[in-house]
Amino acid sequence: MNPAAWQSLEERMRELADLWRTSALLSWDQQTMMPPRGAEGRARATATLRVISHQRLVAPELGELLEEAAGDSLDPSRAAMVRVLRRERDQAVRLPDEFVRRLALASSRGQAVWQAARRDRDWESFRPCVEEMVELKREQADMLGHDGERYDALLDLYEPGMRTERVERVFAELASDLAVLIQAIADAPPLPEPPFAGSTFPDALQWDVTIRMLADIGFDFDAGRQDRSAHPFTTTIALHDIRLTTRIDESDPFSAFCSTLHEAGHGLYDQGFDPDYEDTPIAQAPSLGLHESQSRLWENLVGRSRPFWCRYTPVMHEVFGDAMRGAGPEEVYRQVNRVTPSLIRVEADEVTYNMHILVRFELELALLRGELAPADLPGAWNDAYRRRLGVTSPHVGDGVLQDVHWSTGAFGYFPTYTIGNLYSAILWRQIRQDLADVEGQVEAGEFEPLLGWLRERIHRPGYLHEGEDLIRQVTGSGLDHQPFMAYLWAKYGDLYDVRRSA
Amino acid sequence: MNPAAWQSLEERMRELADLWRTSALLSWDQQTMMPPRGAEGRARATATLRVISHQRLVAPELGELLEEAAGDSLDPSRAAMVRVLRRERDQAVRLPDEFVRRLALASSRGQAVWQAARRDRDWESFRPCVEEMVELKREQADMLGHDGERYDALLDLYEPGMRTERVERVFAELASDLAVLIQAIADAPPLPEPPFAGSTFPDALQWDVTIRMLADIGFDFDAGRQDRSAHPFTTTIALHDIRLTTRIDESDPFSAFCSTLHEAGHGLYDQGFDPDYEDTPIAQAPSLGLHESQSRLWENLVGRSRPFWCRYTPVMHEVFGDAMRGAGPEEVYRQVNRVTPSLIRVEADEVTYNMHILVRFELELALLRGELAPADLPGAWNDAYRRRLGVTSPHVGDGVLQDVHWSTGAFGYFPTYTIGNLYSAILWRQIRQDLADVEGQVEAGEFEPLLGWLRERIHRPGYLHEGEDLIRQVTGSGLDHQPFMAYLWAKYGDLYDVRRSA
Repeated sequence: MNPAAWQSLEERMRELADLWRTSALLSWDQQTMMPPRGAEGRARATATLRVISHQRLVAPELGELLEEAAGDSLDPSRAAMVRVLRRERDQAVRLPDEFVRRLALASSRGQAVWQAARRDRDWESFRPCVEEMVELKREQADMLGHDGERYDALLDLYEPGMRTERVERVFAELASDLAVLIQAIADAPPLPEPPFAGSTFPDALQWDVTIRMLADIGFDFDAGRQDRSAHPFTTTIALHDIRLTTRIDESDPFSAFCSTLHEAGHGLYDQGFDPDYEDTPIAQAPSLGLHESQSRLWENLVGRSRPFWCRYTPVMHEVFGDAMRGAGPEEVYRQVNRVTPSLIRVEADEVTYNMHILVRFELELALLRGELAPADLPGAWNDAYRRRLGVTSPHVGDGVLQDVHWSTGAFGYFPTYTIGNLYSAILWRQIRQDLADVEGQVEAGEFEPLLGWLRERIHRPGYLHEGEDLIRQVTGSGLDHQPFMAYLWAKYGDLYDVRRSA
Repeated sequence: MNPAAWQSLEERMRELADLWRTSALLSWDQQTMMPPRGAEGRARATATLRVISHQRLVAPELGELLEEAAGDSLDPSRAAMVRVLRRERDQAVRLPDEFVRRLALASSRGQAVWQAARRDRDWESFRPCVEEMVELKREQADMLGHDGERYDALLDLYEPGMRTERVERVFAELASDLAVLIQAIADAPPLPEPPFAGSTFPDALQWDVTIRMLADIGFDFDAGRQDRSAHPFTTTIALHDIRLTTRIDESDPFSAFCSTLHEAGHGLYDQGFDPDYEDTPIAQAPSLGLHESQSRLWENLVGRSRPFWCRYTPVMHEVFGDAMRGAGPEEVYRQVNRVTPSLIRVEADEVTYNMHILVRFELELALLRGELAPADLPGAWNDAYRRRLGVTSPHVGDGVLQDVHWSTGAFGYFPTYTIGNLYSAILWRQIRQDLADVEGQVEAGEFEPLLGWLRERIHRPGYLHEGEDLIRQVTGSGLDHQPFMAYLWAKYGDLYDVRRSA
């Protein structure tokens, strides 16, 4: 491939990056800033941008450049750029423009309908959106191609190379092991209520603490920001413009702190790609599971650890004064790790969290397989929650309507949350080997060694390798639920004084 | 033209509207939300969007559809859509993609350089941007075409149909008449200092008052929002998503109130287009001068009027308490109308404001004509301010670097501010005839009759007619500086006890 051809390919990559990032801004703004009546115009603008991105991606000239490049012997990063973009293009060419527009409109409008439906606890107003979306996603899966399992085609959009059958197998083992731990904890005496139960933690002060934590762990505010949104998320507007959101509950500051740490994990990843890869297809995570491993690592392995609260309990005393009276690090540590089967996924503890994912995975798999009608979803949801967690939502708002994902058509996305949890434990095991004193460093507020380890091994490479290959290179282990279960038993065994039976 | 062809034309109009509005969001976000290191990525994304819009606009298929439509007998609104879009397309086809990209990159980067240069009061770091931009704009003017006066081609982008020669004539008459009034005021005793001089007006309370004023005068917060930015502006993200910004100075609340009312005038206009025109080329103002007439009408004719402060002085007492002690409506009215030749355009009073515009107009005309080198701009700026207003900036930050416009290449834009002032006085004269009690209504906080009048006559039609034609239809008068001077003499004659000599 001559230099001019490569340059032309690079220009197309940059143009695609600009378009994708502009779409990201449209979406960020929709969730944080947009006034309500802007929704319809936004749906159309979003669809137009998506169609144009799609047209540029499927352009025959790009296909030819990629074919030519693929035939060359390229250095590893260029080879990866070509591999990743070819993969994305191969998927895109199977979808007509018109379908891309329909899907984008349904997604943007579905999100607006869902917001109102959730607020009003009104399943019936949202049902037609789910019906339309399930049809669209089945159609999309058929266009993308699969060997009988439509879910494979959708899962692959978020977790390249992962198969439904493997997820089912790993999740089944995990569910069975988790059930034992959950039962053991349920049978143990509950943790005592903390001294600050019932206290109020003013919104503005909580906000300041989240900003301080972000700065402490290394989030670059010259290259990012934090805002508020109903559902916290992270998005990439540009390599040096990474946006997090959080939400604040005045009765529970740990909700905002954990949410901020979670999104910070995503944000640190996105700020950490090799700058040489900027605006290329490898300046991204190879899988959402790997992305989630970073958010969960900071949220849970760091942010719900004893050393972390040895560091930050004094900060809370300094900021919140009387509200914290009588609470030491141990009280806070216990509070942020209280295990309670509950209704809301994003508020769930580390132990029960994956049960929320299993419920969603099984339901969306059944929807895609045609074994469950959208109309029967609320009942199936309640059944699954009863079975997995022994709880029932008093209304659909905290039940089947609690997540945004299905409204936007993100079927196949949920499993990546659990994959991320499993990866985070595998990485943490390795980190503790490589950085023997990581816990002492966290307690001293020295986060650079940990961030440096992640930067070098996980962040900088971007999509140079497939997600599981990278985990394997770094830790010697692929997707596996056992390190995660070992982590849980060690931590919660201690907290609840329970032991794994032989 | 058959219905299918019209539908195809409409789809292209909608796509262009989506692209332009997405560009508007990129720009709004850059000025309100974007972290500093996002600038370079934003410059590229903005350029990419502009090039794509340009490509879509010059597409031969669109040209053919427009030609076909132009040959038909269409209803007035469709005829206007075709006329406006043909005009925009005829200009666009003269600019190559590559030039559009260069201009967009220079504009976005220039803005970032200007921000730093203004902060650091460093002309030399900004000079190369001005040099590059003047070259680009001369090139653009030559591509667009002109009969010897490059400025005509640029002015026409903001004020369609307006000629430099006419602006020079009207502005010369205005300058001469203004000089007499300014001298008369300078010779009169100064207005007494207000009782609240030296008081502090807390930021958060000022913000609440701006929001209350916006709601009072009819700004729809379900279809818009207000934020903060260094330089207040208004932008259209969608017909039902209109964004204003303001800025707050704790020592001078009238700065924020007047700025909010100014931007609200723009915002009410943009919220008021006929919804049937949504996403078509006529859902926009026919000229920036007409747009500015709306902002100046609300800021000055309403917001700096005695009745307005009869209404809002009690509100200020309620909100700011002691800080307002001893100040009645008359004290506030005098304060917001104090005439002082000063350095900063956006803080200038109604009387001296247009002198700031005249300075800029003459300088940019000289730059475009090649009669002034960018390197000589700071000196020429100071000379002009001394001559027109008798003031000299102690540094370039409040001198030649004070406005964003030249950094983004908006040469030809400044005259529209003065045109807007002149139009606002022409409109106000008509409004006082049609709504005999408009001042009583303002004093009673009843803004609906005024907004209704503007909605019906100015806002709803959008770009159905050319700007000056619309003013003429509504008031019987075209661009003319005399109604403005009559308004100033009546108001300031009373305030300063000065009279126009015969």
